[in-house]
Amino acid sequence: MEPPSDETKLPTRAAPVQLKTPKGTLDFIGTEVKLRKHIFRTVSEIFERHGGQELDTPVFELKEILSGKYGEDSKLIYDLQDQGGELCSLRYDLTVPFARWLAMNTNYPQVSRYQIAKVYRRDQPVISRGRYREFYQCDFDIAGEYESMIPDAEILLIIAEAFEALQMNITVKINHRKILDGIFAAAGVPEDKIRPISSAVDKLDKLPWDEVKQEMVEQKGLPESVADQIGQFVRHRGSLSEILSLLTSDEKLTANENVKAGIEDMSLLLSYLEAYEIADKVSFDLSLARGLDYYTGVIFEVVTSMPNTRDSGKKKEPQVGSIAAGGRYDNLVGMYCDRRVPCVGISFGVERIYTILNARLPKKKGESAIAQDLDVYVVAAGGSGLLLERMAICGQLTKAGVRAAFLRKAKPSLRSQFNAAEKAPLTVILGPDELAGGKVRLKTSTGKDTSSGAEAKGEKDRGRLVAREDLVAEVKKVLQEISQS
Amino acid sequence: MEPPSDETKLPTRAAPVQLKTPKGTLDFIGTEVKLRKHIFRTVSEIFERHGGQELDTPVFELKEILSGKYGEDSKLIYDLQDQGGELCSLRYDLTVPFARWLAMNTNYPQVSRYQIAKVYRRDQPVISRGRYREFYQCDFDIAGEYESMIPDAEILLIIAEAFEALQMNITVKINHRKILDGIFAAAGVPEDKIRPISSAVDKLDKLPWDEVKQEMVEQKGLPESVADQIGQFVRHRGSLSEILSLLTSDEKLTANENVKAGIEDMSLLLSYLEAYEIADKVSFDLSLARGLDYYTGVIFEVVTSMPNTRDSGKKKEPQVGSIAAGGRYDNLVGMYCDRRVPCVGISFGVERIYTILNARLPKKKGESAIAQDLDVYVVAAGGSGLLLERMAICGQLTKAGVRAAFLRKAKPSLRSQFNAAEKAPLTVILGPDELAGGKVRLKTSTGKDTSSGAEAKGEKDRGRLVAREDLVAEVKKVLQEISQS
Repeated sequence: MEPPSDETKLPTRAAPVQLKTPKGTLDFIGTEVKLRKHIFRTVSEIFERHGGQELDTPVFELKEILSGKYGEDSKLIYDLQDQGGELCSLRYDLTVPFARWLAMNTNYPQVSRYQIAKVYRRDQPVISRGRYREFYQCDFDIAGEYESMIPDAEILLIIAEAFEALQMNITVKINHRKILDGIFAAAGVPEDKIRPISSAVDKLDKLPWDEVKQEMVEQKGLPESVADQIGQFVRHRGSLSEILSLLTSDEKLTANENVKAGIEDMSLLLSYLEAYEIADKVSFDLSLARGLDYYTGVIFEVVTSMPNTRDSGKKKEPQVGSIAAGGRYDNLVGMYCDRRVPCVGISFGVERIYTILNARLPKKKGESAIAQDLDVYVVAAGGSGLLLERMAICGQLTKAGVRAAFLRKAKPSLRSQFNAAEKAPLTVILGPDELAGGKVRLKTSTGKDTSSGAEAKGEKDRGRLVAREDLVAEVKKVLQEISQS
Repeated sequence: MEPPSDETKLPTRAAPVQLKTPKGTLDFIGTEVKLRKHIFRTVSEIFERHGGQELDTPVFELKEILSGKYGEDSKLIYDLQDQGGELCSLRYDLTVPFARWLAMNTNYPQVSRYQIAKVYRRDQPVISRGRYREFYQCDFDIAGEYESMIPDAEILLIIAEAFEALQMNITVKINHRKILDGIFAAAGVPEDKIRPISSAVDKLDKLPWDEVKQEMVEQKGLPESVADQIGQFVRHRGSLSEILSLLTSDEKLTANENVKAGIEDMSLLLSYLEAYEIADKVSFDLSLARGLDYYTGVIFEVVTSMPNTRDSGKKKEPQVGSIAAGGRYDNLVGMYCDRRVPCVGISFGVERIYTILNARLPKKKGESAIAQDLDVYVVAAGGSGLLLERMAICGQLTKAGVRAAFLRKAKPSLRSQFNAAEKAPLTVILGPDELAGGKVRLKTSTGKDTSSGAEAKGEKDRGRLVAREDLVAEVKKVLQEISQS
């Protein structure tokens, strides 16, 4: 214990401090971090399998790098205070820092990169619905000139592999910005109304057609006949081949250059997805529009699939909306330099994936997020406490890579030690007599200690005797047996 | 290729943007990230072995949480702009966020936590000497009431295990704030001069005693006799038992309550370090003072040891100063709440450890930080390019966890494909005739394909025939053989 003289030095709080994290942010501890890292490791391995290089950029960028990239949402950017020197802002996403990096690093004309990091949006947080001001993004993008749709197909393959590895059933909703723009143009939507109409159409996954039409006609001033023509198409979704037939059968549409180029892209994509055997994961959804302005080609959004009817007995999973989204953006890097660096990529919604995977974990009510994973607990069965002996054995075990612990007291009670030891599959018991003979006792809490051969019943309860010099090897052997059984 | 119509849409840059990261910050890519992650993984595993729970806190804290914790260095804190709402600052270290977390989470009276994250200091950056404005810290701390020096010894065990795992020879310089303060008091340093004199003494690892004495006497106005008395002690360093004998042999010192309490702590610590068999890693250095005000007990600093004389042929490692540092701080959490939560911890200097480990890696001049780790390259040996077939086989391989790639062109030349294939230990070669017979060729670039048994010389050059349906299993088999050889 610290000597009492120290207590007098305890500083008193100058003023009561508000004990909280800033609005819209959270601390994570223990299992909350572990599950997020499981997601990161799972997708990283797939990114690297596809040649992904990890990128780590500063949490803030020069303010001018971010400005003019997010339209109306620019007001959500966090700025650093002007403390003399450069004006900086916290990153809003991982795409703009990547575009800035591509513009700076001319020696990498083609690169696949991934980045997993937190991004910052001064949005109205709705913690209960998973909307935060600080949250993880997890992005994979392929940058550089390639032949049409080859990288786009690979992004879809990565999506399929990632959610397979995360054991999540998904559907990728897919559309093409040029086809969407072409449909609007062919229907007679004026150029300046294309983005507002596009955002109305995007709501078709939540609202019925009538309400979307109403918004287009009444709020956005579109003639009803134009809205009806749009409605003829955007309400359709189906397999790539079904929607391609629908589009190519309409002469007015195929006369539009944008639609023609989009159909060409999507036909190529279909053949590539068939080669990858993932065409069945994709649903061509003509209402998918995506908010961001910078998309120029294929766009996609990943949603969880309804479980099969035979799975209907399963626990219902949380409904969280799209769990990944992305698309092709060929002009963003060109905003920073005089080169054209076409890109296509995907961003995984880490928090939503976390919500789904977390709901699957078996949980006891009131269970703590902190749970130590232990292999061995070292216990003293003797009045003197045997602190130095417990430390010596614990140190030998941890140095050998074993997760070992002891009660951090000089003279703990036997009961408190055995209570703590319950968390570990193995207990090492030290007694003065055994130690004098150069031995300790090793006890399995599960009775899975098969290496000891036929054991007397008494041995099983008290643990079997092991020579001190053999203890580390014995512990490792038994742990391996337990992990394999 | 994108149709040319798209080119006309390329946005032009509104104004020339400065293409750089903010002052004192860096991007990391590829191998630069990999080596840092190797460090993180290595130490994390040791932290978890000792019951460490990972904590993830927001990058910014309420400004008032940070204020009054860093003394003069508070001017280096980055503030966020006041955009309405709360005033926030970027974290300056990981200790204060942990103290805030401990104060908030009363349900964890005892916890070992670790955190690996970037911290922010608006310092004058000296990139060439490794001083940045954004850099990683990697902290492990044990919080809560425990019996004296037991957690302190465990922190030293963790330090020893971590640098052993990183294959670095180290010495831990150690001292005790109470002993240092007691020496100053016994020598007659007035209370208000203790911290300035302490910071002068801390320079003894870089300056000779005469210059340090000069600073104390001329700049800080200490009588020469007092400085000489300090000098009698602080120039000493040696094993714990040596310095403990030195201190206990001085009656004036042992009469001081602080020194007495410090000696008691250090004697206990010595017995614990002997139990852990790490006492030889520690050097008791009475000049070690550490800058931060909040330390209350043992303090330590880790430096690289000179290589043994028998290693003198080895490449000289970069000299980087201390590579980890920490100590006991029992009063910090009490600044946020009415409880006392004693803490002891260590912070690893990730960038300095990176510098040393990076200098050890074999490097070719001008080598790129981007290097794809590949298992298999899929090549078409036929005029038509066989794009869909290459995709199909690549997809089968990546879905099975194999790192496979192909040239993302419809009709690539044979030469360009084989050039790219040089990076992979295995090449799968597709030919129209072989495919028609349901087969492909599998070729090892290293000649290590032992599973094919006796091979004709021609087979070795062209690769051996494998049935398509057996390819994934065959590839995995050969890769395992290569990794084991």
